[in-house]
Amino acid sequence: MESSLPTHAKDNPNVSADGAPSKNALKKAQKEAEKAAKKAAAKKADEEKRAAQQAQTSEDTAKDKYGELPQEEGPIITHLKKLGEDHVDKEVTVIARIHNSRSQSAKLAFLMLRQQGKTVQAVVAANGEAVSRQMVKWAVSLSVNSFVRVTGLIKKPDPPVASASISNLELHVTKIYLLARAAEQLPMQVKDAERPPPATAEEGQVDAEGAPIVTLKTRLDNRVIDLQTECNQAIFTISDAVEGLFTEYMRKSGSRQFNTPKILGAATEGGSGVFEVSNYFGKSGFLAQSPQLYKQMLIAADCESVFEVGPVFRAENSNTHRHLCEFTGLDFEMVFDHHYHEVLGFAEQLIVFIIQELQARYKDEIAVVHRYFPRAGDFRIKDGKALRLKYFDGIKILRDAGVDTTEQDNYVTDLTTAQEKRLGQLIREKYDTDFYVLDEFPMVVRPFYTKQHPTDPKLSNSYDFFMRGEEIMSGAQRINDAAELEASMRSKGLDPDAEGFVDYVNAFRQGCRPHAGGGLGLNRIVMFFLGLDNVRQATPFPRDPQRLRP
Amino acid sequence: MESSLPTHAKDNPNVSADGAPSKNALKKAQKEAEKAAKKAAAKKADEEKRAAQQAQTSEDTAKDKYGELPQEEGPIITHLKKLGEDHVDKEVTVIARIHNSRSQSAKLAFLMLRQQGKTVQAVVAANGEAVSRQMVKWAVSLSVNSFVRVTGLIKKPDPPVASASISNLELHVTKIYLLARAAEQLPMQVKDAERPPPATAEEGQVDAEGAPIVTLKTRLDNRVIDLQTECNQAIFTISDAVEGLFTEYMRKSGSRQFNTPKILGAATEGGSGVFEVSNYFGKSGFLAQSPQLYKQMLIAADCESVFEVGPVFRAENSNTHRHLCEFTGLDFEMVFDHHYHEVLGFAEQLIVFIIQELQARYKDEIAVVHRYFPRAGDFRIKDGKALRLKYFDGIKILRDAGVDTTEQDNYVTDLTTAQEKRLGQLIREKYDTDFYVLDEFPMVVRPFYTKQHPTDPKLSNSYDFFMRGEEIMSGAQRINDAAELEASMRSKGLDPDAEGFVDYVNAFRQGCRPHAGGGLGLNRIVMFFLGLDNVRQATPFPRDPQRLRP
Repeated sequence: MESSLPTHAKDNPNVSADGAPSKNALKKAQKEAEKAAKKAAAKKADEEKRAAQQAQTSEDTAKDKYGELPQEEGPIITHLKKLGEDHVDKEVTVIARIHNSRSQSAKLAFLMLRQQGKTVQAVVAANGEAVSRQMVKWAVSLSVNSFVRVTGLIKKPDPPVASASISNLELHVTKIYLLARAAEQLPMQVKDAERPPPATAEEGQVDAEGAPIVTLKTRLDNRVIDLQTECNQAIFTISDAVEGLFTEYMRKSGSRQFNTPKILGAATEGGSGVFEVSNYFGKSGFLAQSPQLYKQMLIAADCESVFEVGPVFRAENSNTHRHLCEFTGLDFEMVFDHHYHEVLGFAEQLIVFIIQELQARYKDEIAVVHRYFPRAGDFRIKDGKALRLKYFDGIKILRDAGVDTTEQDNYVTDLTTAQEKRLGQLIREKYDTDFYVLDEFPMVVRPFYTKQHPTDPKLSNSYDFFMRGEEIMSGAQRINDAAELEASMRSKGLDPDAEGFVDYVNAFRQGCRPHAGGGLGLNRIVMFFLGLDNVRQATPFPRDPQRLRP
Repeated sequence: MESSLPTHAKDNPNVSADGAPSKNALKKAQKEAEKAAKKAAAKKADEEKRAAQQAQTSEDTAKDKYGELPQEEGPIITHLKKLGEDHVDKEVTVIARIHNSRSQSAKLAFLMLRQQGKTVQAVVAANGEAVSRQMVKWAVSLSVNSFVRVTGLIKKPDPPVASASISNLELHVTKIYLLARAAEQLPMQVKDAERPPPATAEEGQVDAEGAPIVTLKTRLDNRVIDLQTECNQAIFTISDAVEGLFTEYMRKSGSRQFNTPKILGAATEGGSGVFEVSNYFGKSGFLAQSPQLYKQMLIAADCESVFEVGPVFRAENSNTHRHLCEFTGLDFEMVFDHHYHEVLGFAEQLIVFIIQELQARYKDEIAVVHRYFPRAGDFRIKDGKALRLKYFDGIKILRDAGVDTTEQDNYVTDLTTAQEKRLGQLIREKYDTDFYVLDEFPMVVRPFYTKQHPTDPKLSNSYDFFMRGEEIMSGAQRINDAAELEASMRSKGLDPDAEGFVDYVNAFRQGCRPHAGGGLGLNRIVMFFLGLDNVRQATPFPRDPQRLRP
């Protein structure tokens, strides 16, 4: 049966690496490929020959100790981050980029080597036959950012090399080979991206020392270079850690990870705010704005406790420091036995766990980020637990501090972003904490699936989580009765019989336990925990209304 | 600055739970909501009153021991899967669905309770004041699939209850409350979904005993009910485990998890096969067919070893047992020191780790699935390691067995699906293993970014992984030199200067280490490991050319 499929279908085996063009195209292209490969090989050989001739104008006693990497096997490689005092007077081999190089004389050159942002100085000193002058010349001729494989003896420099992040060690080169060449001209230098982000967003500025100021836009346009800084390497180690700690905590609690569909058959929240997939086999599809309906359907399907890590798509034209059109959602949903505060307490402990583990396990990375973002490292959790306030107690703190809360008092709007930030400051002053929760939000500012407060119909069993006064999570007890859900939807102008809702509402008709959950934004947790300026700094390749590249 | 934003932007806080309608709409809807809620509450009260009247035609001595759940606090709840011999003669409270019920007499009823597919019998026996006749009548009147909270004494039935999965225990009910009511008519019964999937795809059939045969289509149409079977619960416990084991292994190796964008600015693999996002702020976007280009850009950005778990979108009109339009990719990419076999060996160990841990930790779940899919549990890995063959050695095995391999011998096409399956059988017979790897595929059948074999230009440094003769992973060493990459792209008819490729090719211009990686399909690993019939059975809510719902 399968073999009668068109070859293209077979080419596309639903494993994610390799979406190849069709085989016929490939077949036709094969001869061209071989021709091109031969041509490239011939060109390379020619270049190597010329380089070899150039280097050997005089006899070179070290000629097999540098050059294009000659073989595919080799010595044990040591990572720069593993280099320590116990390597002194020992030979090591590292693979690193050339961060910069300086020729002191025909016999002496200094290379700054860089691996994942960490730097160490390498000394190439001609010393008779072992290291030749040609070798020194060749080493210093390599373009910045090229990858080299360097072997040498580790020594203790006196004084330490102040400009290197590994200042107490130095590598005395005995062999150096080129592994991957960088172009002579790069659109941005890593050393420029290593400077703290500027206050200005204008291009073409220079700082007091005449060095170019690289704006966030330029950094993001050249993200592959930007990510090479020690700070960015540390930020994404923290981001990976948050993701790992979230899944670790959820799985330990007995929750199961699911991957719900991102292409939906109908827009569930109106046409604005949703991206449309225009060519779904003759139909329109829509990108999920959250896994909300699906994680609830999994609860209705007896899964009891579920979580998901996946992309969330928002077509909102919001150009702020904390909004993205695509971000990573950390979602969870679970049944409870008696009261939704069981879930709220679980979620509070989850966040406390993540923050405390970050602080315990990632001191070094936080210290690196601190050099660029001074608030990194000062995140406070009082007494190792979340501060939980009722929404209107939060409003009262604001009102007592002289903030106009008339609209909130009258259930007109939710807290504004400015009010949230102010509340964050006030709570930090009063309670010495950067993590708090507001509970019992007004029903009017929450979505249709939110469960009403049992005694006050103007309130709801819902909560938001804040870090440094900015929202990282929204959650609630959900309506689990089909009739109640339909009434709530109708009251908010939504049609329970619409195509996008039928399966969802039916999930509750067949019986569903009371449940609650929440949705966290990974990028925001990283941003607020580290005190970054912008959510884009916590996103490898951000997407916003202005940015679809790289 | 933030507070001057339109309220809708503020409403959409980039945390994933709650994409609410605008506040004005909410505000207007508030009064309606309260009205509707009052109406619903009144209706409910009325129903309760009538039910109470009905039950109390005679005086009811047990009237506070059943009914609608009266309170929000309560006893410790025991999960059915935790019930054991040590509970005998003790009181427990469980929350479970009514799987079915049977009235023996006015004084005696049997309820089969079900939680996550596990069943236990509950006995409701009128015995003077503690359990009344009214209580027995009410309990047996509850609709199938409703959730109840039941308290009772655990007893050992003699003989065991053959029809219950927990046959050695029985619950003698003292209290029973309704937690969530199911509709009287359900579109499908869980007990029908519990039967093994039929060989026929035709609707409306009955089996030899007259029970309806529920086809895969009907099951998937009613997936929330279908997922409630013990078999499906076990399948998704395995699926969660595969995801967890993959990330565990990757993280332990020092790799970091990244989330790369799923909306891209340009289609990188031609117009067919890619879903288009038509409304990206005046531009077109495209859904990523794999994270391939981005994970390589992360390698070029010095991330050294990265992995990703995320959706992969394929707009291929492939209607087979193993193709989906959206599936979960488990991708990894990493630098190597000397040879791509370092990465290939790592990946082999990764799969062996996943399979061996599944076999060790999930015996119970595998045994449950085995009752429905007989091949579950018989997965073989010889000597705890992958069998690695060269592609053309695999072809030779086929040829020696009489299979026509003329096209493969002449580099015309890749293995067909039928050939792959046959090879899987032959290898199982010859090597006693269900997991093997083919290495050194012909260049012509691999994508443009694949590294050529160092000595034979017709071959490549690439590999596929197979489970039970079907592909679960495709991977390779990648070209890490910009000029070589451009030549390869041109030879395959692709333009390196096209918008979708510029950032990718530039990533290699600034220097990139040799690297390799691969992409696994989560759904396929689960399917082939358990010997399921169809990849949809390993996908909570599958998407294919015919299916966008539920």
